[in-house]
Amino acid sequence: MEPSRLEQQIQFIVEIDKLKSVRRRTSLIDGTRNENTAEHSWHLAVMAIVLAEYSNQSVDLIRVMKMTLVHDLVEIDAGDTFFYDAQGELDKPVRERAAADRLFALLPPDQGAELRQLWEEFEARQTAEARFAAALDRLMPQLHNYYNEGGSWKEHGITFDRVVAKNVTMNEGASTLWSWTQQLLQDAVAKGFLLKTP
Amino acid sequence: MEPSRLEQQIQFIVEIDKLKSVRRRTSLIDGTRNENTAEHSWHLAVMAIVLAEYSNQSVDLIRVMKMTLVHDLVEIDAGDTFFYDAQGELDKPVRERAAADRLFALLPPDQGAELRQLWEEFEARQTAEARFAAALDRLMPQLHNYYNEGGSWKEHGITFDRVVAKNVTMNEGASTLWSWTQQLLQDAVAKGFLLKTP
Repeated sequence: MEPSRLEQQIQFIVEIDKLKSVRRRTSLIDGTRNENTAEHSWHLAVMAIVLAEYSNQSVDLIRVMKMTLVHDLVEIDAGDTFFYDAQGELDKPVRERAAADRLFALLPPDQGAELRQLWEEFEARQTAEARFAAALDRLMPQLHNYYNEGGSWKEHGITFDRVVAKNVTMNEGASTLWSWTQQLLQDAVAKGFLLKTP
Repeated sequence: MEPSRLEQQIQFIVEIDKLKSVRRRTSLIDGTRNENTAEHSWHLAVMAIVLAEYSNQSVDLIRVMKMTLVHDLVEIDAGDTFFYDAQGELDKPVRERAAADRLFALLPPDQGAELRQLWEEFEARQTAEARFAAALDRLMPQLHNYYNEGGSWKEHGITFDRVVAKNVTMNEGASTLWSWTQQLLQDAVAKGFLLKTP
């Protein structure tokens, strides 16, 4: 017997509980443990509410919030790829697409299509909402690393120049936040949290 | 010098990272550990997106999502009060109000007022959005306990009658979901996950 619409929806909700067990490279601000992708997604959605006014273009906030909530669901199957891992980035699109195929298909087709489209939109970085959501996703680890005095920058020997090069696209979504972040990074160098050069 | 608007917003975002360290009584569905309140809030916000069609009254989804994301922020100071802990429930309003006073005041006044109002609205359960969000907040632990085969029901000796008595208000926000939940609970009894009587 085919599951009912509500049963499909419940199965999706139960399945995505697994995102709470996907560990990121970034630690909590208090440094006690690495954070997981579910709590990161929560943090990002609240950040979207609070910082919406800094988007370069006006955005439909509910679409930004939905994107932040589902943008990393594919990590349930594909795992978290470290932002500075060039090797891992190579096959990431293939792994994540297969994950999207499986996960969004758990939902009734109309809802699966909506959330998958939001994930594809986030990945493509072409719309105002996707650019802003992506800018927030890049800002968040800078806050974590600064406020826990180096965090994954220190752990993986990441330098100021690499952080700037990898995050300059924040400028496309939220130039005010990018300016602010650059000051934060310079301050991080001054305080010894981030290496200036290798 | 007064912090700028953006500095206030960042301080709030940094402060609420602490919600990731507030442990709930409910375990992850795979049973590996108890979940924390930040990841629970993420799960609830996604649930709001997926189950919005079951609200008794039509709702403004963005308000429901914002409520689910901030409804438990006060636990940063007040801690998680177990749903079946009658003693803990007694002074919970006082503890949570003091927490709201501190946390929402970190934000610029307009944003602090908006999020505090959403929290108060959620607590008061008078609007369509609050009743629906509250129904979801009650559904979620039933799913966790059912799918991890007893979880906090077994651990704390909670019976079917108590679960029904404490969750019947789901009916005010989402009667279809409450009917479905009652079947789930009966199935939980049949499978030995939940005691019928003490």
